[in-house]
Amino acid sequence: MLGLMNASLFEACAIWSVLGIALMGLGYALLLRSQIMKYDKGTAKMQEVWNAIRLGADAYLRRQFKTIFPLIFILTVVLFLSVYVIPPNEEALERFKNFSPDMVRLIVGIGRAAAFIMGASFSLMVGQFGMRMAVQGNVRVANAARKSFSEALKIAYRTGTITGMLTDGLGLFGGTIIFIIFGIASPDVLLGFGFGGTLLALFMRVGGGIYTKAADVGADLVGKVEKNIPEDDPRNAAVIADLVGDNVGDCAGMAADIFESYEVTIVSGLILGLALVSITGELKWIVFPLLVRGIGVFSSIIGTYLVKGKKGDKKVDAFASINRGFYSSAAISVVSFFFLAVFYMHEWRAFFSVAAGILLAIVIDEVTKYFTHTHHAPVKEIAASSKTGAATLILRGLSIGLESSAWQFVVIALTILAAVIIYWGQSVVFVLYGVAMTGIGMLTLTGNNVAMDSFGPIADNANGIGEMAHLEPEARQIMADLDAVGNTTKAITKGVAIGSAVIAAVSLFGSFLTDVSKVQAQMGVAENLRLLVTGIRVSEPVVFVGLLLGAALPCLFSSLTINSVARAAGLIVEEVRRQFHIPGLMEGKVKPDYTRAVDICTVAAQKELVGLALIAVLSPLLIGMALKVEGLGGFLAGVIISGQLLAVFMATAGGAWDNAKKTIEDGLYGGKGSECHKASVVGDTVGDPLKDTSGPALNPMIKVINLVSLLAAPILIHYQNIDLRVILFMTVCVVVIFGAILYSKHGALSFKKTNDAGF
Amino acid sequence: MLGLMNASLFEACAIWSVLGIALMGLGYALLLRSQIMKYDKGTAKMQEVWNAIRLGADAYLRRQFKTIFPLIFILTVVLFLSVYVIPPNEEALERFKNFSPDMVRLIVGIGRAAAFIMGASFSLMVGQFGMRMAVQGNVRVANAARKSFSEALKIAYRTGTITGMLTDGLGLFGGTIIFIIFGIASPDVLLGFGFGGTLLALFMRVGGGIYTKAADVGADLVGKVEKNIPEDDPRNAAVIADLVGDNVGDCAGMAADIFESYEVTIVSGLILGLALVSITGELKWIVFPLLVRGIGVFSSIIGTYLVKGKKGDKKVDAFASINRGFYSSAAISVVSFFFLAVFYMHEWRAFFSVAAGILLAIVIDEVTKYFTHTHHAPVKEIAASSKTGAATLILRGLSIGLESSAWQFVVIALTILAAVIIYWGQSVVFVLYGVAMTGIGMLTLTGNNVAMDSFGPIADNANGIGEMAHLEPEARQIMADLDAVGNTTKAITKGVAIGSAVIAAVSLFGSFLTDVSKVQAQMGVAENLRLLVTGIRVSEPVVFVGLLLGAALPCLFSSLTINSVARAAGLIVEEVRRQFHIPGLMEGKVKPDYTRAVDICTVAAQKELVGLALIAVLSPLLIGMALKVEGLGGFLAGVIISGQLLAVFMATAGGAWDNAKKTIEDGLYGGKGSECHKASVVGDTVGDPLKDTSGPALNPMIKVINLVSLLAAPILIHYQNIDLRVILFMTVCVVVIFGAILYSKHGALSFKKTNDAGF
Repeated sequence: MLGLMNASLFEACAIWSVLGIALMGLGYALLLRSQIMKYDKGTAKMQEVWNAIRLGADAYLRRQFKTIFPLIFILTVVLFLSVYVIPPNEEALERFKNFSPDMVRLIVGIGRAAAFIMGASFSLMVGQFGMRMAVQGNVRVANAARKSFSEALKIAYRTGTITGMLTDGLGLFGGTIIFIIFGIASPDVLLGFGFGGTLLALFMRVGGGIYTKAADVGADLVGKVEKNIPEDDPRNAAVIADLVGDNVGDCAGMAADIFESYEVTIVSGLILGLALVSITGELKWIVFPLLVRGIGVFSSIIGTYLVKGKKGDKKVDAFASINRGFYSSAAISVVSFFFLAVFYMHEWRAFFSVAAGILLAIVIDEVTKYFTHTHHAPVKEIAASSKTGAATLILRGLSIGLESSAWQFVVIALTILAAVIIYWGQSVVFVLYGVAMTGIGMLTLTGNNVAMDSFGPIADNANGIGEMAHLEPEARQIMADLDAVGNTTKAITKGVAIGSAVIAAVSLFGSFLTDVSKVQAQMGVAENLRLLVTGIRVSEPVVFVGLLLGAALPCLFSSLTINSVARAAGLIVEEVRRQFHIPGLMEGKVKPDYTRAVDICTVAAQKELVGLALIAVLSPLLIGMALKVEGLGGFLAGVIISGQLLAVFMATAGGAWDNAKKTIEDGLYGGKGSECHKASVVGDTVGDPLKDTSGPALNPMIKVINLVSLLAAPILIHYQNIDLRVILFMTVCVVVIFGAILYSKHGALSFKKTNDAGF
Repeated sequence: MLGLMNASLFEACAIWSVLGIALMGLGYALLLRSQIMKYDKGTAKMQEVWNAIRLGADAYLRRQFKTIFPLIFILTVVLFLSVYVIPPNEEALERFKNFSPDMVRLIVGIGRAAAFIMGASFSLMVGQFGMRMAVQGNVRVANAARKSFSEALKIAYRTGTITGMLTDGLGLFGGTIIFIIFGIASPDVLLGFGFGGTLLALFMRVGGGIYTKAADVGADLVGKVEKNIPEDDPRNAAVIADLVGDNVGDCAGMAADIFESYEVTIVSGLILGLALVSITGELKWIVFPLLVRGIGVFSSIIGTYLVKGKKGDKKVDAFASINRGFYSSAAISVVSFFFLAVFYMHEWRAFFSVAAGILLAIVIDEVTKYFTHTHHAPVKEIAASSKTGAATLILRGLSIGLESSAWQFVVIALTILAAVIIYWGQSVVFVLYGVAMTGIGMLTLTGNNVAMDSFGPIADNANGIGEMAHLEPEARQIMADLDAVGNTTKAITKGVAIGSAVIAAVSLFGSFLTDVSKVQAQMGVAENLRLLVTGIRVSEPVVFVGLLLGAALPCLFSSLTINSVARAAGLIVEEVRRQFHIPGLMEGKVKPDYTRAVDICTVAAQKELVGLALIAVLSPLLIGMALKVEGLGGFLAGVIISGQLLAVFMATAGGAWDNAKKTIEDGLYGGKGSECHKASVVGDTVGDPLKDTSGPALNPMIKVINLVSLLAAPILIHYQNIDLRVILFMTVCVVVIFGAILYSKHGALSFKKTNDAGF
């Protein structure tokens, strides 16, 4: 019934109810959607602006799908064929013992390919559907703001919640259904699911990041700096692209990123859980994470539903209300975890592990707030340093970014130490399981987190529509207030996204260890669980080489993404400048050609994508072939270390510069137009691509590399015995994938050519 | 005779001749000194300026000595007493088998303490004497420039060579004499020697870095930016501090830094060599590195003596001549290494290891040049990005810095791989020895490198004296040309300094492994060479925690040093502004009070020093106590990875911004005063503290942490068996050291108070 031989009735029922809760989450999302769609879209002028955003968003999503599709297709085939290189493992043979080995091979192959497609399409759906909903929501928020603050808040937050519940619901549904079908054989298939999700997230994150910042920086450099016209001025040709960009980056990109962490933690949780099942003989270790996730979805539904404006109609209340929702969910979760641990697990340790995750989310929150919020010393110091010019302001920001990196390292280190202490005296697998459970706990409130995050671009877009449709001042004030709240909630979720990515990557690293050991044992390469015993020894020169090369990768990746934004923004600058020269445009008589700027961003964002994705996918394969499995382990550790360092550094410095600019715009040191303000604008422009493109791009990159390593590990171990078929298979993979690059490059280039001709 | 029972006559003679060569190097330095001192110091006006620089430099050196002395004294006592916690090892007992164990303990204790003092005072001497010589040289270079280019070049380069030969000579002398006295017991004593050198280097590097950039940024912000007066204008109160700063940072700081790498590579080379001696029974493994070093000093003497200007008197020739000297030395060394390997070592591998080091130095050189030289794409791109303002220029620089970090990781990784390939199939100890030999090879030409580096501040100061003493235009042109050559040579040695620091740290890391294993074996903690067999497993959660915490440290350190510069520069800005308000000063009728600015820099540089040094000294102790020896190993790996990442990133970005500014000042994009130039000045100001303070400060930090870990390893292993005496000893250490901080803080603070009152 469950693909698990010895599941108790309670366990079977519990897992089916988890599936039910996942569907309930999705149903809740649909319910909210129908509520939102009933609201009015406002005046004709508002709908005109909205239509432009909608079309831009659609164009981006269509083009992105076209770019990604060939790669997805190829990888599906590769994943299916991979079972013909490495036969299914013992668990699969046991799970399907009624079938012939050839049949089992086929089942696992199909399962893995299907899971990959499912992971990819769920991730795509979270991004695309969530973004489409955000676009539906923003115009309705703008219209509601003409009547009441609380109504506008409710629509904005509930629209965000739709994406949140999709993330939760789809992630849980996918993981659970695979578990129900494949039982103890599921880790192998789950890897496909996780890989699909992470790969798509990488695309959405990087593409969205480049798009949003190219549009933003490009629009600002010409509009605000050169022409001195306000933000969201309808005469700026890049203004629609900028509004689309907020959805593409903060909504689609972020949702896919968090979805991926959500997925990946459950994958590693189940892999490590299975290792414990084989050690202890108890099923509870794999059932527990699914139940925890079910509780999370349930408490997110309740918590998010509690968020609504009060009669008081005040800005402060909005944030308080969102927070109240978050803490309600957290409280429900923690209490349920307690009962689950005591009455089902019969032990405290599981409770502490997941509760540590919730604590971790809160601590990361506080640390992020300290370094990036206007109320605290760091941002105040940055703002003050604007008095001696842009250079000192930049230096202060760099210094604060580095300091926050140091502290976030300490926070993650303490989290792992907590797992060590909780599972004191137990074997390493228990500790790794504890870390994975902390990741599961941390992402319990994903529904709330994504809702808070999506709230940001919705409020921002509503504000933009208000500006462009020249709405009433009262409505504009309400939207500006909502926008400010959105900026804070966005910043908070950014910290959680990085933290969860690192914890997810560490869990994957743990899965890598147990998985490699298991495969080695099954293949007779070495004694049982060899790698877990010898470990990844950085004291081995080859492993140290892996560590160095791993550390190099995030540096290269960040450098490339910064350059991509710079190049794309350059194209936008040229286009906006060109359009300002059209007679009558500056006077507002002629409307600029918004679609052109949208097209440029869309093409630019896709162009660099495939190359970056291939670096992430191929590098662990190459390293694994050259330095063997242990060297690959060192590589993974290097990627995690340097990725975390840079991701936090860039996100914090960027966020702090942004807010330093805001405090000055609110009147400090001479306010807008002063020399201090100019210095702070330089800081903000430097920080934008760091915090919204390069930094966030590292989250999915770290996870993709870890997942690819997990997938490739059995093949690499096989390859160590020099099997010609494997080498052939690897060569075919590499050739096929490079074919895909050429195809996409060509596609992107040919499109660009027609664009260039028009310039 | 040699402290080595079974040394052959050839080996005994060879080692004594190495000592002779070391003394020859020192003699050569003295010879050059007497040559230099004979030159004329020029006009009264020149001597007046020079006197101000000299007094400023003296004041700095005196104050630094006062700050450092208590810590040195305490640590000497601690090192002496440490033998009473951990008894001398077997080698020491064997070396002094004619004495009673108590006597041996006393001998080793005294040896270690004396070696520490020797290391510290040699490092101090290199810095202080080298800097005093640079100050003696600069005025003479300025005077010679009034007559001939080639004369000025010769004086400048030979003055630099004095520091170079001191570095070589003292480093080799110290290492060899310890080896002669202590023989196989020398590693233990050598650690004290290395620790003294690194600790002093940390002080000189960090203090010098803060001093030079506080003065530079402070002088520029008010002088160039606010008042629009040229660099080195005598009306600027910080101008002498700026000139002193060049000596303090580029001369004393850099020389001490390279001296330290020189020392530390020989320490780790001998430790690893000794491990091989115990494995193979052949003495050659420890004799070889000393002979290589001897060859290096010899070839440096010849190579540096070849550098002199030609009749042509052209700027290009100067650089060519310096390069010719470098390549002559390199050729002599490589040929000698070849004969040494074939006729003494009877094997090729040793030759390839050291030759790889020279190759590495050249590759790092080329990579550094590619990323920071005006002729190549990166700097051109940064300059071009100034067209869209400071923000895009900063972004481009950050991107290029990150990219260069990625490539430098690859270079270091390839170096280690080379050692793996050279010692293919041999045990890890051989590979680690190979890495150490690469470090020895890389630093072979230390004499030339330091000469090239010191040439920079000498030429720079000569130029400043010329400006302030209003010398003839022809002489000024010659000095400007020399200054430009100096900027290039300085940039090149910066790359070598970072590379050598990382390789030295990796060698130390290797020594840590063998040493810990040996101690564990001798103490019966585990089977023979345990750690080398189990290794440092990052797959162990506690070790991964160490890795994360290690990675955090360079972030924190960099953040603190950036802030120190910012704070100190702020004080200078205030002081210079105050002095500009003195009536008659702007008209040139009243002379500014230079000493005040010098005092402020001096105090500020010392104030932050002790805290930073204590972080470096105490953190490995605390981590070792909390996470045990293997966790400490992870910590060291984390420090190396994150330290290398940030050091290269900051040095490259800073250098590239600097040169981008220079190309614009040479007339690109509108030249001086254009909007592009302003943007490039912002970049340069951001880059200055990164490349001259924070980045270089990481080199000694990485090495100090590794050395302290090596020293503490036996104690930590003991502590793992919970010995109350050890805990007591550690507690006393911590208390005493914190007492030292309080003392220094108090000293610095009380001085600052009187200064504050004067503002």
